[in-house]
Amino acid sequence: MEQQIIHTQRWAITLAEELLKMEADRIVVLTDCNVARQDWLRRGLCELGKILPIRIDSIEIGAGEEYKNLETLVSLWKRFSESGLTRRSIVVNIGGGVVSDIGGFAAATFKRGVRFVNVPTTLLAMADAAIGGKTGIDFNGLKNEVGAFAPARKVIIDTSTLSTLPEQELRSGFAEVVKMTIVTGCRDLYNRLVEPDALHNEAILAAGVRYASDEKEKIVREDPFDSKGVRALLNFGHTAGHAYESYAAEIGHPISHGEGVAHGMLAALRLSHERNGLPIEDVEEYEEKILRRYYQPLPFGKEAAERLEELMGHDKKNKNAGEINWILIDRI
Amino acid sequence: MEQQIIHTQRWAITLAEELLKMEADRIVVLTDCNVARQDWLRRGLCELGKILPIRIDSIEIGAGEEYKNLETLVSLWKRFSESGLTRRSIVVNIGGGVVSDIGGFAAATFKRGVRFVNVPTTLLAMADAAIGGKTGIDFNGLKNEVGAFAPARKVIIDTSTLSTLPEQELRSGFAEVVKMTIVTGCRDLYNRLVEPDALHNEAILAAGVRYASDEKEKIVREDPFDSKGVRALLNFGHTAGHAYESYAAEIGHPISHGEGVAHGMLAALRLSHERNGLPIEDVEEYEEKILRRYYQPLPFGKEAAERLEELMGHDKKNKNAGEINWILIDRI
Repeated sequence: MEQQIIHTQRWAITLAEELLKMEADRIVVLTDCNVARQDWLRRGLCELGKILPIRIDSIEIGAGEEYKNLETLVSLWKRFSESGLTRRSIVVNIGGGVVSDIGGFAAATFKRGVRFVNVPTTLLAMADAAIGGKTGIDFNGLKNEVGAFAPARKVIIDTSTLSTLPEQELRSGFAEVVKMTIVTGCRDLYNRLVEPDALHNEAILAAGVRYASDEKEKIVREDPFDSKGVRALLNFGHTAGHAYESYAAEIGHPISHGEGVAHGMLAALRLSHERNGLPIEDVEEYEEKILRRYYQPLPFGKEAAERLEELMGHDKKNKNAGEINWILIDRI
Repeated sequence: MEQQIIHTQRWAITLAEELLKMEADRIVVLTDCNVARQDWLRRGLCELGKILPIRIDSIEIGAGEEYKNLETLVSLWKRFSESGLTRRSIVVNIGGGVVSDIGGFAAATFKRGVRFVNVPTTLLAMADAAIGGKTGIDFNGLKNEVGAFAPARKVIIDTSTLSTLPEQELRSGFAEVVKMTIVTGCRDLYNRLVEPDALHNEAILAAGVRYASDEKEKIVREDPFDSKGVRALLNFGHTAGHAYESYAAEIGHPISHGEGVAHGMLAALRLSHERNGLPIEDVEEYEEKILRRYYQPLPFGKEAAERLEELMGHDKKNKNAGEINWILIDRI
């Protein structure tokens, strides 16, 4: 099932137009409590209501990964059921990855599949999480243990919604944008991302989001169920990154996904230099102009090496237990 | 995703062979407590264990539609998670429609999709429920309110497992076999189904199951998400049938799905005679040799007409509220 990525500067109007084309009999808008209190959201929903001649319901969930759980899922199913959602209705997920993950899964499993549209409002969701059909909840203490491959029919991206995003969230998503330019070899855009203060330059950020989201869509289209290995490319920097995240949490100094990935990419670039002949200048440029500029040092040193190797061996993306799969490159 | 239907007379050996081909790293066998106590099941699992060099876990759920609920679903996810099921594992649903509906849904949503195989053990499941990818649970008082389209990779059908099936269940499934020969115009097989005591004739039953399951698979392949109207054919007799079921429940004399459909088919045949020129002899033959032979009269009379029409208007398969869609035929 194809997934249409739409870039816009007026998300509410674009959303209204797309929903009209989709002939929904009803809309449910899902947000989290952070997004719900933004002025741009209230204004947008108001515009939506003026254009759409159908009933629009709103559901708000708690903000943060800890709400991506069974309890929230069941509450969404219940709300859908009680409000009489039909298979012609559409769920609109406005928020970060948690909102599109759980809202997408709830929609995909209600009446065996209600259509949904994602409007990502974090950099991470725009560049990565909202695209590609991976939906689900954390369960039994494990991330995304329950879920489905179910693409949003449309992903509507408006980078103006990033204006209210906390700095920390911006940095977390930036790592994924940088990653995409590295793994797809888009040197031109990478050169802009290493410019001073690129993270706060609206034009550069918008270009980065547009590029990363379109590339992600292409990669996903080739491998919708993550079964052919094509998506492995997206794992660049994540082998070490996930291990850093886990270890940091173990020692009581948790780091964000973006921080883990940013440091993980340095490890992958270094290994790419040693094994694949990536010029050392590229490694140094990344370290100086991306990693040092936007990310804190890791909260541990060389003493972690043994445990990190162990953690990398447990990564669920490894085919065989104990084996570590690195994604390496030979040029940026 | 194609769904392979395999007819066999030694289900356990066939299952073992197929699982070997699928290179599973582990098997979970799901049954209900009725199936679990059958000798043929115990013998079969024993054979399975001898042939398969991998770990086999068993899970047993309560028997009956009332266990097709959220609580059972969550308990299955929990068992899958705790026993460390991976995306290379396979869930084997051995039982009637409840087992394949909930087991299929739990598998399809565990780690975004674990493969599953159905071994239907009721006539209804063999001819209908186990085939076609409709999985799910009842929720908020509504049937299949939560679920997904997720086909079993393989459906292994062995009619010898019907030997321990209660008469009432046999009759319920028989209606669907008869329906399939009518809507696909297979007069030859229909002629065998109207033979005296066809329901207890192993050869006729086996031929009926083989035909109905293969035809269902073909129809589903053309319309996997029930979106093109092709599957509507399968709804023959169900418009009135569902209304009969609902009304009978309302007045405190519940009837089985098969009974409802058997009577619903008479209504559809009569209307086909009136509107489409179906010979009256065909209507009479059905009434005498199928309906009267195997099914009790409906527990209500003409006084129900008004309420039945109302119920038919509510059928979720109707495109527009209040409109009643009848599937009619011009010959058997």
